[in-house]
Formats: sequence, structure tokens, C-alpha cells
Amino acid sequence: MKKDGLKIAVIGGGSSYTPELIDGLIRYYDEFPVAELYLVDIEPGADKLKIIGDLAQRMIDASGKPIKLHTTMDRREAIRGADFVTTQIRVGMLDARSRDEKIPLLFGLIGQETTGAGGFAKALRTIPVILDICREIEELAPDAFLINFTNPAGLVTEAVNKHTKVKSVGLCNLPIGNKMQIAELYDVDQRDLYIEMVGINHLNWTTKVVIDGKDQTQDFLTKIAGRSGFSMKNIPDLEWDAEFITSVGALPCAYHRYYYMKEEMFRELNTTFQETGKTRADDVKEVEAELFELYTQPELVSKPPQLEKRGGAYYSEAAVQLMKSIYNDSGDIQVVNVRNGGVISCLPEDAAIEVNCVIKSDGPHPIVLSGELPPQIRGLLQVVKAYEELTVQAAVFGDYHAALQALTIHPLVGDEQLAKSLIGEILAQNAAYLPQFAKND
Amino acid sequence: MKKDGLKIAVIGGGSSYTPELIDGLIRYYDEFPVAELYLVDIEPGADKLKIIGDLAQRMIDASGKPIKLHTTMDRREAIRGADFVTTQIRVGMLDARSRDEKIPLLFGLIGQETTGAGGFAKALRTIPVILDICREIEELAPDAFLINFTNPAGLVTEAVNKHTKVKSVGLCNLPIGNKMQIAELYDVDQRDLYIEMVGINHLNWTTKVVIDGKDQTQDFLTKIAGRSGFSMKNIPDLEWDAEFITSVGALPCAYHRYYYMKEEMFRELNTTFQETGKTRADDVKEVEAELFELYTQPELVSKPPQLEKRGGAYYSEAAVQLMKSIYNDSGDIQVVNVRNGGVISCLPEDAAIEVNCVIKSDGPHPIVLSGELPPQIRGLLQVVKAYEELTVQAAVFGDYHAALQALTIHPLVGDEQLAKSLIGEILAQNAAYLPQFAKND
Amino acid sequence: MKKDGLKIAVIGGGSSYTPELIDGLIRYYDEFPVAELYLVDIEPGADKLKIIGDLAQRMIDASGKPIKLHTTMDRREAIRGADFVTTQIRVGMLDARSRDEKIPLLFGLIGQETTGAGGFAKALRTIPVILDICREIEELAPDAFLINFTNPAGLVTEAVNKHTKVKSVGLCNLPIGNKMQIAELYDVDQRDLYIEMVGINHLNWTTKVVIDGKDQTQDFLTKIAGRSGFSMKNIPDLEWDAEFITSVGALPCAYHRYYYMKEEMFRELNTTFQETGKTRADDVKEVEAELFELYTQPELVSKPPQLEKRGGAYYSEAAVQLMKSIYNDSGDIQVVNVRNGGVISCLPEDAAIEVNCVIKSDGPHPIVLSGELPPQIRGLLQVVKAYEELTVQAAVFGDYHAALQALTIHPLVGDEQLAKSLIGEILAQNAAYLPQFAKND
Amino acid sequence: MKKDGLKIAVIGGGSSYTPELIDGLIRYYDEFPVAELYLVDIEPGADKLKIIGDLAQRMIDASGKPIKLHTTMDRREAIRGADFVTTQIRVGMLDARSRDEKIPLLFGLIGQETTGAGGFAKALRTIPVILDICREIEELAPDAFLINFTNPAGLVTEAVNKHTKVKSVGLCNLPIGNKMQIAELYDVDQRDLYIEMVGINHLNWTTKVVIDGKDQTQDFLTKIAGRSGFSMKNIPDLEWDAEFITSVGALPCAYHRYYYMKEEMFRELNTTFQETGKTRADDVKEVEAELFELYTQPELVSKPPQLEKRGGAYYSEAAVQLMKSIYNDSGDIQVVNVRNGGVISCLPEDAAIEVNCVIKSDGPHPIVLSGELPPQIRGLLQVVKAYEELTVQAAVFGDYHAALQALTIHPLVGDEQLAKSLIGEILAQNAAYLPQFAKND
Repeated sequence: MKKDGLKIAVIGGGSSYTPELIDGLIRYYDEFPVAELYLVDIEPGADKLKIIGDLAQRMIDASGKPIKLHTTMDRREAIRGADFVTTQIRVGMLDARSRDEKIPLLFGLIGQETTGAGGFAKALRTIPVILDICREIEELAPDAFLINFTNPAGLVTEAVNKHTKVKSVGLCNLPIGNKMQIAELYDVDQRDLYIEMVGINHLNWTTKVVIDGKDQTQDFLTKIAGRSGFSMKNIPDLEWDAEFITSVGALPCAYHRYYYMKEEMFRELNTTFQETGKTRADDVKEVEAELFELYTQPELVSKPPQLEKRGGAYYSEAAVQLMKSIYNDSGDIQVVNVRNGGVISCLPEDAAIEVNCVIKSDGPHPIVLSGELPPQIRGLLQVVKAYEELTVQAAVFGDYHAALQALTIHPLVGDEQLAKSLIGEILAQNAAYLPQFAKND
Repeated sequence: MKKDGLKIAVIGGGSSYTPELIDGLIRYYDEFPVAELYLVDIEPGADKLKIIGDLAQRMIDASGKPIKLHTTMDRREAIRGADFVTTQIRVGMLDARSRDEKIPLLFGLIGQETTGAGGFAKALRTIPVILDICREIEELAPDAFLINFTNPAGLVTEAVNKHTKVKSVGLCNLPIGNKMQIAELYDVDQRDLYIEMVGINHLNWTTKVVIDGKDQTQDFLTKIAGRSGFSMKNIPDLEWDAEFITSVGALPCAYHRYYYMKEEMFRELNTTFQETGKTRADDVKEVEAELFELYTQPELVSKPPQLEKRGGAYYSEAAVQLMKSIYNDSGDIQVVNVRNGGVISCLPEDAAIEVNCVIKSDGPHPIVLSGELPPQIRGLLQVVKAYEELTVQAAVFGDYHAALQALTIHPLVGDEQLAKSLIGEILAQNAAYLPQFAKND
Repeated sequence: MKKDGLKIAVIGGGSSYTPELIDGLIRYYDEFPVAELYLVDIEPGADKLKIIGDLAQRMIDASGKPIKLHTTMDRREAIRGADFVTTQIRVGMLDARSRDEKIPLLFGLIGQETTGAGGFAKALRTIPVILDICREIEELAPDAFLINFTNPAGLVTEAVNKHTKVKSVGLCNLPIGNKMQIAELYDVDQRDLYIEMVGINHLNWTTKVVIDGKDQTQDFLTKIAGRSGFSMKNIPDLEWDAEFITSVGALPCAYHRYYYMKEEMFRELNTTFQETGKTRADDVKEVEAELFELYTQPELVSKPPQLEKRGGAYYSEAAVQLMKSIYNDSGDIQVVNVRNGGVISCLPEDAAIEVNCVIKSDGPHPIVLSGELPPQIRGLLQVVKAYEELTVQAAVFGDYHAALQALTIHPLVGDEQLAKSLIGEILAQNAAYLPQFAKND
Repeated sequence: MKKDGLKIAVIGGGSSYTPELIDGLIRYYDEFPVAELYLVDIEPGADKLKIIGDLAQRMIDASGKPIKLHTTMDRREAIRGADFVTTQIRVGMLDARSRDEKIPLLFGLIGQETTGAGGFAKALRTIPVILDICREIEELAPDAFLINFTNPAGLVTEAVNKHTKVKSVGLCNLPIGNKMQIAELYDVDQRDLYIEMVGINHLNWTTKVVIDGKDQTQDFLTKIAGRSGFSMKNIPDLEWDAEFITSVGALPCAYHRYYYMKEEMFRELNTTFQETGKTRADDVKEVEAELFELYTQPELVSKPPQLEKRGGAYYSEAAVQLMKSIYNDSGDIQVVNVRNGGVISCLPEDAAIEVNCVIKSDGPHPIVLSGELPPQIRGLLQVVKAYEELTVQAAVFGDYHAALQALTIHPLVGDEQLAKSLIGEILAQNAAYLPQFAKND
């Protein structure tokens, strides 16, 4: 990779998360010397982009690092010749998320941003926009890496891998947080901890824990049984049943609660919604309003601690670690979303998976798993991946039949009449964002 | 196979289905000349066995075929030197089935004999008994074929294949009925019809229909969309949504309604149960009482037409066809349950599957599929097969953890607390039949 | 398949083999009622076509069957609307075969029509012509089956499957002869014998022998050890070493002698060549001259017994059996060349393989193997198949690099300088027939 | 791994290579602080062990590192509680190697230490001794890593993985030398170079070269075409044909010359042998005599430069790098021999392969390949691996049939009579070292 003039384009630069990223770029500047940083957004986000841009400039100024900042609505200019393009977009903004969370609740189902029918709706809206960005990368920066933070990150990565030539890595802050929590549990330095994470984005199991070279997996399972924790800010932190954890033989990720505890999770979400009329999107709106309020304060020259509440902890850590490891050909291990290629032998070769990878200058190289996945993990993983394949097909081609099958086999739906009703509602409420389905009418 | 002195042992010979089998053995006697026929049952079934034995003897006498009939409670005597052992047992009898159907309903879930938590309970009770029978076959008739009609036939076949050396074929009357219905739909002779059935027992798709050498699959899907029919006596005959069938790209089997239409099927079953306190088992008890009443009539010397109501239509057809094709090395194609061995590449090699097989003297040889399974079929098939693997593990070893995971990932349960409650109830209500779990306490 | 007006086009109709085919069509007329039979050839074969056409007409007349015979050089007319197209062509005629056999001998290697460098040269010449025929079938008879008898039949089948949409089956008379010999060895009717043949064309092992339902494989291996026989007219009939056969654990096919006994086979071929200057092609020329002399005799109205010497015994049997089984949707088992599709799991999915298939109206359906191939079979099969993949690539695209690697890894060459020299000579001596390589210069 | 009291047992400690290892242990002492170092040998090697032990002690003394050295013939004492056991044994010593090299030459075949019939004989002698060592490790040091340098390293690794529970890594100095040469060719630091090596021991291709994050594979192939170099001290350094290298699409390893250039390599070896009666073993004997002469000189306190001639350049580098990366959980990438587990999808799961691995405290984790292997690599790799499987079977069980098939399908033999003769001669000349075959007589 070229060692000077490093250029980064951040699509969705007006996001409230951006100060995290700026903070990371400043902290790691010596190892990852960004010369040109483009924050890109669309017209409706102009105000936010202005606020973020100003804050970012103050942060850079305060740091003394020679990063040249640009804010722009010209996406092509930002992408042209970039070394890295990151995306953190939200098609339809928080209002769309709010709808994604509410529609399933009306049908007695979990309404969640990235899982189930909510994540499905988000995928339909998001994938076509990301593919548009990829067309521009193919044209204007064919050697660039796309670092995709946009959710649902696994579905987006699979769509990009199947339908474009862009070198793409899907990224989530869950794995890095998970590792931190395990290191904390054992009170060891992260460097003395090796964990194996296996699965797909937001459905990922920690199947092995090695500390100082000793396999501590069984001990670890005993420790976490019956504990809460190991969750995320945006997910109710229900504790894991001890016997259940033993029977899984691995630590499920925070999002697994939507599957394994779907009854209780539904009650949690629904009770709040019935009582307040609100879902997580509404909370986020309030947090965002507060954050932008803060961001406008001229004396603020660093990311504020309140940002942590936003659910994106370790975001800058994950993104900057990945880019600097590619830049420096580091060869360290990170958990990212990549093409399967046989690593998880029970999933299709071209599926996007989330596993341990060695990060080299040509991107992530997945590491072979230490053993076969047991049936309890395999079965759930396979059916959700089949749902994802169908959803990518639906999102890219506006394929209604694929959409219908996607939701019918999804473990959180599982009924064709329900699937049909959900899709009807999703298509109706998102008509402005789903031209691919209009075309096919 | 030896051409004279053909010996068959029918385990569960006192079943109300037996006259079907006797009828088939008489009809096909010239091609499949049974010399010694043993009907075996256990002490609590002595009365029924007497009635069935007498009827069977009258049927044989009326036919003039030189089949020597024995009724016995000495299972070892029956198995010793047998060429074929068939099983049609019901561990716990209809009372157990009734419990299997009612327990899930109490938790708001489908209660069904072979599917979901009901089928799971039946598998736990049945597999150990079948393995006991297999130990005797290994000792007393190592060259015999086990023709297993006992439900859940797929789970039983997988258990036998994984844990014994017995040559075993699992059999279901659904495929033969399915083919007859398609032949009828097209008004063609069955011999001019070739269909490809793919899946596992009671979760099997018809993926290809060839008539007179022409692939008519698309036409067939159009024809069946929006139709009822293609069901079984024991399954509510809801019609398939036209758009949904198109999106599957194959004809689901009758039992698929429990998955694809789980909401409506639950309502059907639950409404009946709430209104009458009865489930299918209770109806069957009544039918059985009537049948045994009929069977005692000395003037009855053939299977009565009322037997059709029992759900076992084509049973004799399926069982006798299979045995006579093995006996005669026929090389014809039948849909039976066998070890996968790579035929369905997305399932484990040692899984039991239900597919087209060429029947030769050394048993069934699966035929390679005409194409890859699409994700909508693959995903559902994989998760249910993973459930089956775990259930076999639970049934054979009394492995509670496997049981917990089995129900947790089952599409009709899908929640670990629900799974735990169901298992608690199943173990409590079936304690007398589940010694393998007692051992592990 | 349409039940009247059955039309067959025989490409290479002027072949001396054709009377075999005519004989078969007459004998099986009642089950396979050919209405229109086209014998097609090219200008240089006009005389032969005339002789064959006249004889064929006399045979048909004598039989009284209402087959309408056409001889033509208009290939398109022959193919248009055909139900079956068979090919039995020899690009470059026997002179080319003679060169194929002699070039390798000059380098100290086995020179043989279908194996090693000779078969490689034949593939380069033949595949492009067959693909031309396929283009016409795609246009003029898209529903027709191509029954390919043209050697190297496995390579041709793989090329057709990979590069056209034609429904194609590759056919060889070796399997049918092999089965006849085994039936004879055991003095049983072929119908009581089931054998499993596994491999690729001309590299096929008999891995299982079942007689009357009993697995007799071990007994069979003992019987054949140290025997000659099980060969073909065109292959020196060296006997198999007893210990060696035991170590293979299967019966190799006749052509395996070129691999397993390559030293002795080379000496045989080379001694004859050194002493007489002749190879098999020269013998065949003489046999052909005699045959055509015979064919011109007006009193000849049936295939003459001398035809057997030609090496094509059972040819009509194999070809007509296959076509009539497709026509009648017979469902019997035949060994033919088809797309792998996972049957031989250690070979690529899209490789052409030669295995037991059930013949239905939509073509052959491979039967799953009864077990894993042992390493001694697997290793040889894999390297020869890799050679075939490269050869198909070379033949279709005139890819010199693929050609160089094909011969370098071939077990009968195995050296890159030798491969280079051989290819140089083959390209030089076959320049008129290899336009695909000229293009790439 | 325990951070103090690190114990290493070196089986075959009297080898002339040992000073290399001592040198490495001293140089890397700070990162890999060996406390106890056992050099073990057998009675006939007592004199050599004395000389080596004395030199090693002088080297350690000169270094000032607190490594405690033991020389012993009590292997159990050395192994008990060891952290690492390394082996560098030569069963039958150089006389046996000399026979291995000469027997094939007498049959007109390449005679080489690790390849072809020579390597086969070495495997038969060596594997049983290594398995004996493994039994002691299982008993006395079950957590130890076996670092196996003994040739044929791939075959030994496969035998250990299949037949013991020992954690084993097979090691060769070829990959490290290969990487150094490529770094030199491009004049870059090794740290800026990433290469992908794929294959099995001594049959390994460099399929990808990345420099500073740019894929330079095509450029690299152009550069190496027509060059000599990239060889080893013990292999004639014939240059690669430019067109041939292009057609491979990868850099073959030095040992590939025995396959790809088998004719010329045979001539080289045979000419020397005919002229001098000597093979490489005889040269090595002379070098060894000189080395031991040097080693006895009291003033020698470091490894002498003459050791490089011995063919084991980078040996200490490879061995110490591996052990210290395991010890320190480094996570760097090294090319070692491990269980396949699906990395090379065209080889069996349990085959030993040689690929890029991430070295962690629990051993090597293979990295997924960047693409499918092309047929020219796949075919050769598969047939040689099948030979290896059969050879392991032959070596462990004294299975003559496996031995016969192993050599019959080996690309450098390829004829069953030749295989039989070779095995006869090998068994006769090695009778004292092959008790497993005596048992089976």
C-alpha cells in the first residue's frame, strides 16, 4: 500500500458515530497516517455533516496531526483514488429504523434493527445503495478496500461479494467487545487471550477460549453460565441459563438472545412499546439529539463520553485497527466478515461469514476452525444463512418470491401467511426506498 | 436371496394395520412367496394379537396360499433366521400418542405424532426399543433386512444406521401416495411418471415431475397452486397458497403444513382440542375399536375397507413392494429412508434421508439428484436434520443437553425456556418409557 | 418421448461399424421403432457411405421393418428434429490414428488410440468437431439426445457438458462386455448379476460383484487373479498378477494395462512396431478393407461375423439398449458417461465420469456408490481426470499451456521436456486438424 | 505455556545438525529461555553424541546463557515432562540412505532420499520408530509438542496424526529458504513479503507473492522463468523452462524437479553414480566426517560455516522460530506440516499438508487458501498424497498390499512389476529395520 498520501472516504460522514472514528484516526496516526479524509453525506444530512465536520476539524486541530479534512456531498470526488472507503449509512434514517422495529411487533414478533423481519427490511433498503457505491468504487478506486460498518453487515458483505468486484470487509464492533469482556473476566491482557469466534454477523459463537496457551473453554462455559453481561448497549441483558449454556458448548453472542430467548425478548420489547409507544429507535433519536447538541459546543475538541451510550463502543477501535493492519500488513488476527471459501464447511462457499482472520496487506485471510461445528450450532447457522441468501437475492433483484421464502424459513417468523403479511407491510411502508420491487410489478 | 423358505417377522404384529400387510403378502405371493410369517407382540397386546392372528389365518386360508402363520410373544424365535424383519410398534400405545399430542398444545405449540415436540417424545420412547430389536437381529439374523415402518421413521433409521450393523430401510406410505396422486392429477399410468422426491421423512419435497420423458415441473407447480389435496388422512387438508408454492419451486409434502402454515395448523388442532378435549389419537382409538370389532367377525376373510380411514393407505403396497423388489433384485425405483452418503450434499454423510432409490438385492441404492437444492429447501431441511441428529443422540444416550438443544433449534419450538419446560413435561409423563434418562440422573 | 416418427441421425454413418447398429435397430425394432434413419458422412467418405447405405438398405429390406433410410452429406438436414443423434466419427481417419500411435513410440512411450499422448492428440482433433455438431443440435434439435460413441468418449462428454447445452451421454462398449464376461465366469444370467463400475472412460474399476443378492466381490477377485481375459480385441491380453489384483481390491478394466503394466505394454507395442513398422491402426485398415469388400457383396443382408474382429463387439447392443431405455423410460441400469455431480466425491462436480446409471426418459441418473474409493484407485483416477480437464481446456481453446500441463502430469508421460517435444510433434503432424492452435499463434 | 523451567528433548541429538540448533537456542534465548536441554541418542551413536555434547557445552559456555545441557541414552528421562520434543533421527544411518538412493537407480529410476522409492523405503524404516517415541510422549509428556524434522517429514506427520494423540508439527527448512530467496530476488525485507505456499512436504508450490500489499504473482513468474536457483544444496539446480513455469502458474519447489524433469534428473544422478559409484549419501558421509573432525577442536565454540554445505541451512531458524512462536503465542505465519482439515479441499481431511499457518500457543492454525488449486497442481498433488496414505498404511501395519499400490501409483514408478521388484529389494536390504513386515509373513 502506498506509504504516503493515504486517502479515506467516509460515506455517511454526518453520522453521530464519526467523532469515534476521528478519535481513532488521531490516536493511531503514527501507524496509520491519513493524509486526506473525506466525510461524505447526502443533502438531507447537510446540517449534521456541517456539525460533525466542524467538530472533527477542531479535534484534528487540537491533535496537531496533519490530516486534511474535507466535507462534501460529492461522493464521486470522495471515492476517487481513495485507499479505504468506509460506510456507515442508514437508508431512510432513524424513522425507517423505527418502522422496522414496530412492524413485526404488530404481528406479535420481535422487532429489531438487524434481526428478523426488521433486519430484513433494512437489508432491502440498504443493499441497493451499497451496490451503487460499489459501482463507483469499481470505477474510481478499484484498488480501494471497502470497510463496511453498515448494518446488516453480514448481508451487505454477502451482496457486495456476490455482485461486485470490490475488495470488501464487513465489520462489527461485537467481536472486539466480546474479546475485551472475556479478557476482563479472566483479568488477563488481551494479548494473552486467544478466542475462536465462528458464525455470521450477529449470530456468532465463541467456541474456544485459550489463555496463555491452555484451552480454557470448559472453564469459561462454567464461568459464564447463569451470568448476564456479554451483551451490548442496545440489547436487553437477559442472563443465560446455566444448563442451556452447557448444552450449547459455546458462548452465544448478545444477539442470540433474540433467537434462544425469543419469547422473553418479545415480551421485553413489546411491553416497552405497549407502555410507551417507543422502541429503541426512539431512544436513539433522543441520544442523537443530545449528542448533536453537545457536538455544536465550540469548546468540545474530543469525542464526548456520552457517545458510549450510542451502542457503538469500540467502533473506532474496530475500524481503525482493521485499516491500519491492512496498511501495515500486520498479520494480526481480527474477527471480520468475509467470503466463506470453505472455512465453515456446512455453509455455501460464497456465503459471508464472520470468523478469525489474519489481516495482511491484501486483506483478511480466514483461519481454519479448530474443529467441526456441533449440530446445535450448525442447524441454526444454516437456516439463518439460507434466509440471508434469499434476502440478498430479494434485495438485489426485487425478487418477491425470494423475499417470501426468506421470511417463511426465518426462525423468528416461520409461517408463510405471516411472512406474506409482513412483506406486504414492509413494502408499503418503505415504498420510497425500494425501487427494485416497483420495477417488478 | 434364498429362493425358498422365505421367513418374515412382523414386530408389532397385533397392530390394526396388519391385515393390510397380510393382504399384500397374499396378493403378491407369486413374486414374493413367504413360507413362514411370524406375528410378534408383547404381553399387553396379547388380545389384539389373538384377534389379528385369527383374521390373518382366515385371510390366508381363503387365499389358498401356503403361507405358514405363527403368532408369538417370543421375539427371538420370530427373528431367528428371518429374511425380513418389519416393525410397526407403538411404545406406550395410543395413550402415549395422546400425551405427545396434548403436551405441546398446552404450551401453545403444535402437538403432532411425528413432528415437533410430539415426534420428539415418540423418538425418545421408540429408538431404544428398536435398538434392542436390532441387537437381536445382529445376533439371530445378521443377513436380514429390517424394514422399519415405525414412526418417526427417519429418526429411527438414523439411529439404526449410526448405532447398529443391521441392514435397515425406513419406509413411509407418504411417497407412494404422493406419486399416485400426481399420476391421477395427470391421468397417466404411474409407470409413465417419474418424480424426484428429496428430503427426510415427513419433510420431503417433490422437486421434479417428468411425464413421458418431458419435464413438467413448472406446469405441475401451476396446477397444484391453490389446491388442497396432496394430504394424508391424519393431516388437516389446508390448501397451498399459489404464490407460495411458486416461491418454493417444489411440492411440499403433507406434513410441511405443520411448518409452513404453523399458525393456522395450530389453530385447527387447538380449536378441536379446546372444544372436544380430543386429539387425533382419540379419533384413532375409536377407529381402532371399530376395526377390532370388525376383525373378530368370523365371516371376515379380507381386509375391510374401513381400514383406509386409519391413515395407513398404501401401507401394504409400500412394504410388500420393497421386500419383493429386494427379493427379486428388481432394480425399480422407490422412495425410502437410507443413509445419505453424499446424495444430499448439504446434509451430513451419515444422516438418514428419504430419496429415490434403485432397489436391488443388496438393498436400496440412492439416485443422484438432478440438481442443487435451492436455499429455501436447504435451510429448513438442515435445521430439522440438526434437530434429528440431536434427538437421536438424546434418545440413545439419555443425553439431556442434546435434548435441550434439539427442541431449542426446532422450528416449531425455537426458544430455550419453552424447550426446557416441554422436556420437563415429556420426561415426567413418559418416565416409564425413558429409562435412558433415569440412568443419567 | 414422441411415440411415432422416431428419427435418428448417425454422424459418421459411413463407418464400418454401422452394420452393427443397423442390426441392433432391426432386432429391437418392436421396442424402439425407428421411423427415419439418417446416415451422414463427409465428402471424403462418400464411397464408404454409399457401400454402407446399400448394405443397410438390404438389411432393412430383408427384415421387413418399416425403417426409412437416408444417406446424406447434409448434416443439418439429418439433425433437424432428430430424437437421437449418434456420433462415431474419426477426425483425420485411420491415418491420423496411425500417427497418434507412432509419435509416442518414437519417444519411448506407449502409443495408443485413446490413452496417453495418442488419446490426447485424438482429443485435440475431435472435440472441436463434436462441438460444431452440438451447435447444430442446439439450433435444430434442442430436445435430442446426443449419444456419443466417438473416442476419447470421456473427454468428449466432458467437453460437451462444459461447453454446450446438449443433452449428452457418452457410451463405450467396454462395460457391457465386462458384465457379460463376469456373468460367463459365474455361469449366471446377466439379470442375476449386479456389478458396480466406477471411474472414467477407459479407466474404470469393477468394485463390487453381487450375484443373487450376495456380495461376491472377494470371491471374484480371487477368481480373476492370475487370469488373462477381461480384455478387448484391441488390447494385448496380459494376465493380471494375483497379488496385484488383491492389492487393488477391484477389477481394473482392460485399458488399465497401459497404466499398471506400462513397461510390458510398451515392449509389446514397440516390438511389433520395430519388427513390422505397423501399429494397431494398420491392422484395422486391413480389417476395414476386408469388411468393405464383404459389404459390397449384394447377397450380404446381415452383419457379417468378421465385424467382431474390429473391436466394437456389443457396440449395437450398447447403443440401442441406451436409446431404447430412454425412449421407453425403462429405469434399467447401464454404465455410461455423465456429469459427476458429486457421485465420485473426490472428482470435480463437472467432470465426466463413467458409472452405473438408471436410464429414464430424461436420461441417465447416476446411482450413489456403495462406498468410498480406496486411495489406490482415487489417486490414479484423480491425476488422470486432471489431465482430462486440462486436455479439454487445450482442445476447446487451443490453450498451449493447458496442453503442456496435461501431458506433463499424465502418468504415461510425466516429464515436461518430453511433454513439450510430444506436443511439438503432435501439433506439427496434425496441423490440418487443429485450427484452434493456429488461431493462438 | 509455563514461563520458566522450559525443557527440550532433542531425539537424535548426536546429529551433525545439532550445532545449528544450539546456535539458534542461544541466539533466541531471551525470547525462548530453555532451562533444560536434553540431547538423546542411541548406543551406536555414542561417540558422535559425546563430540556434539562437548561442542554444545562449549557453545553454551561461551554464550553465557544459563541453559543446562544433558546428553543421555535414556530417551524416557529426556522426554519426561518436556515442553518440546524434537526429532532428527536417521534410522539405519547414512548407509541406509545410500541404499535408498542406489536401489531405484538399478531399476532405471530416480534414487532420492525423500522422493520416490527412496523416500518410500525411508518412510517404512522411520515411521515405526517415531511412533515408539510418540508412545513415550503420550505417557511421559502428554502436553509436549513434537517438532518433527525427521524426513520424510510429511509422511511422518501424517502417521503421527493418524495413529497417536501427540500434538505434532512437521517442519522443513525449504519454505523458510524459499521465502528468503524471494525476498532477495525482490530486494525487500522478509516482513514486507507475503507468500502463499501450498502443498505437501517436498511437493509444495508458491502460488502467490504479495509485496507491500500488491499481488506480484504474475511478475514473479516472469522473473523466475528460465532461472536456476530456488534450489537446495542437495538437489541439482536445473533451470526451469520459461514456458513451463508460465503454464504451472506457480513456483514449484526444488524437489519438483524430480517430477517435472524426471528424465534429466535421472540422467544427472545416474551419470554420477555410474562414473563414481557414489550418490549424495556418500558425499554427505564425507562432509560429516569433516564436520565431526572440526567439532572435536576444543577452540571451536560456535557453529562452523562449513555446516551450511550439509543442506540444512536455516534449520535452526525454522525449528527455533516455531518453538518460540508457540511459546510466546506469537501469531506469526509459518509454513509447517499439519492436518489438512479442509484447507486443501481436494485432499482428504486427515492428510498431512504443508501450508501457511498462524502459530499460536496451542499450535499452528492453517490459513485458508486464497483460491482453488488449478488442475495441473491438483492432479499431481492428489496422486502423490494417495501414495503417501498407502505408504503410511504400509509402514504402520507392515501391509504389503498397501506398499505395492503405493509404488504402483507413484509418478516416479507407475508400473506394478517395477513396484514389486523395488519392494522386494527394499525389504531384503532393510530387513533389520522393518520388523513390521516380518511379523506379517
